[in-house]
Amino acid sequence: MKILCEKEKLIKGLNSIQGVTNSKTTLPILQGILIQTNNNEVKLTTNDNELGIEYIFSCNVKEQGAIVVDSKMFSEIIRKLPDSEIKIELKNNNILEIECLDSLYKLSTMNPEEFPELPVIEIEKSIKISDVKLKSMIKKSIIAISLDETKPIFTGCLLEVDKNNIKLVSIDGFRLAYTNETINNNTEFKCVIPGKTLNEINKILPEEGIDVTIGIANNQVMFLIDNCKVISRLLEGEFLNYETVIPKTKDTRIKVKTQEIIKALERVSLVSFSIEEKSRKFPVKFAITVGKLTLTCDGKNGNESKEELYLETEGKDLNIGFNHKYLLDALKACDDEEIYIDYGSNIAPCLIKPIENESYLFMVLPVRLTE
Amino acid sequence: MKILCEKEKLIKGLNSIQGVTNSKTTLPILQGILIQTNNNEVKLTTNDNELGIEYIFSCNVKEQGAIVVDSKMFSEIIRKLPDSEIKIELKNNNILEIECLDSLYKLSTMNPEEFPELPVIEIEKSIKISDVKLKSMIKKSIIAISLDETKPIFTGCLLEVDKNNIKLVSIDGFRLAYTNETINNNTEFKCVIPGKTLNEINKILPEEGIDVTIGIANNQVMFLIDNCKVISRLLEGEFLNYETVIPKTKDTRIKVKTQEIIKALERVSLVSFSIEEKSRKFPVKFAITVGKLTLTCDGKNGNESKEELYLETEGKDLNIGFNHKYLLDALKACDDEEIYIDYGSNIAPCLIKPIENESYLFMVLPVRLTE
Repeated sequence: MKILCEKEKLIKGLNSIQGVTNSKTTLPILQGILIQTNNNEVKLTTNDNELGIEYIFSCNVKEQGAIVVDSKMFSEIIRKLPDSEIKIELKNNNILEIECLDSLYKLSTMNPEEFPELPVIEIEKSIKISDVKLKSMIKKSIIAISLDETKPIFTGCLLEVDKNNIKLVSIDGFRLAYTNETINNNTEFKCVIPGKTLNEINKILPEEGIDVTIGIANNQVMFLIDNCKVISRLLEGEFLNYETVIPKTKDTRIKVKTQEIIKALERVSLVSFSIEEKSRKFPVKFAITVGKLTLTCDGKNGNESKEELYLETEGKDLNIGFNHKYLLDALKACDDEEIYIDYGSNIAPCLIKPIENESYLFMVLPVRLTE
Repeated sequence: MKILCEKEKLIKGLNSIQGVTNSKTTLPILQGILIQTNNNEVKLTTNDNELGIEYIFSCNVKEQGAIVVDSKMFSEIIRKLPDSEIKIELKNNNILEIECLDSLYKLSTMNPEEFPELPVIEIEKSIKISDVKLKSMIKKSIIAISLDETKPIFTGCLLEVDKNNIKLVSIDGFRLAYTNETINNNTEFKCVIPGKTLNEINKILPEEGIDVTIGIANNQVMFLIDNCKVISRLLEGEFLNYETVIPKTKDTRIKVKTQEIIKALERVSLVSFSIEEKSRKFPVKFAITVGKLTLTCDGKNGNESKEELYLETEGKDLNIGFNHKYLLDALKACDDEEIYIDYGSNIAPCLIKPIENESYLFMVLPVRLTE
């Protein structure tokens, strides 16, 4: 194998595929990148047996071939080389030579035949969606993906496609994130995509206004993003019927500037920091009266905080407590300047949603106040 | 106590003094900031009994008083408040109220009488130096301060003042940093300043072209930087007679572009990374021949790297090995575009120094090569 390519192009490819090799695998081959040539194209592949990514780019291929090289070391060297043409050549002794101006690197390689190439899958159903829309949906839904491996189904996001709609939903026991976009489409399917896969997709999506294809086949999902193909296993099991847990009515509503409430929440929760426990453990209390939201927090040793926001309110007065972190995650994921927050009783979850449409919704469970 | 002040001013003060309270002290009062008024001035003080900093600024003082408040929580709240006037008031129950627009914070306080105020010291000898010169010296000298507490004297920097010269020298067993600036001055003294003190001074120095006063008294050093006063204990003991360890002759010299050798060293050392040990353990070899420096490194499993730099050389050919980290620390502290590196034998230290003058010098010990 012998190729000549521009640093820029190679880095773009490495950025797309390298995330997969960060898993704590014990198999050295899975920490590698498979580099393969095919006429005047080079394909880079990473695969941890649950998630695999391929990236193809055109390149000056002098000799065809394939090789596996350690992902971390190869990527770091390429990144630090001068901005110039790079020659990558496999020598007889299975040593990969990387040459660029006055720099020469020799790396040991692994056998490409031992590398698990991406499976060839028969796509059963597929849709197209703009990368901008998809990225916006993923950014919002990943905040409520659970990290608790004892309920594996909630470490993923439900993808629900029906005629003209695509939805992503995640839920971690304390909050729920729901996003919904319209698409032109003629098929229907449902699946649960692992959080790790969505995190990688989020990194890869260029937000350039290109169309992304999402296809499913049996227990796998495929994303085609420009010259990048992602194949991931799906999570098996029954996802929560999320519609039944979202309250349909509200007793109280506030209309608030997103940045204003984010800043107030960040400040008011400062006194809840416990130096001994290195965490914030005291809830933030919301007191809603006509035209006003008062946030307060009581910390240790008599430390207290209060923030007042003057805003539009509707419905009943209310006193309710929240973990500031869960609210902040949701509020920071909102891309509207102003939002609604709807409440039921002081033990019912609140709903954070846009004013103009129903493209997303965050549900956050309250904390029971002891007073 | 009741004061009104602009957020900006208060933050500038907090930035100057807050570093002291980061020490892992077990005394809560030493994690506090003493806030004292004096007519229309406010003084902020932190002190960990080894290093103390005072910062004075003018301010609208409504009621005189003094109080100690937790440094971390107070600073975080002030930093996050809106950019507006802040009212800080001590209430009857020893609660400090911080008010800014619609935000109100109440913090518990500590007894100001228990706080160790900075000692009043009788300055015996003092000099003045520009903040720009001093900062440049400190930045260079702190790289070779030792972290090894078993030889406490080397956890500091030697400050040596004689007529018209000020020098800072540090040494950690593997390398030495020496800086030298001319000043107008009529006194002579020597002392060893703790590394922590110099790190804080480095943060405080504004680089605005102001004069800084450095004074010593018995076992303490004082720095006056604008409206900031720093008092630190000195380290006791005999510093190494550094002049005797710096080689006076050279067998080989290279003249090299600083950024070029930094980049080459960073790259060439990449293959020395051992994933198992999460560190870089293989030395970088320097091969100097006429007009050329070749850097090589042999890592694990046959990984190798080579970088060639074409440059001016003088004297004998040489093969010598170094720990890349020690060289990089020194090279990154150089502020000249081109520098000399002088070598003796392959077991003698190399000297990194400017071409035009003798304002600084780094000495780095080589690593013995096994071949």
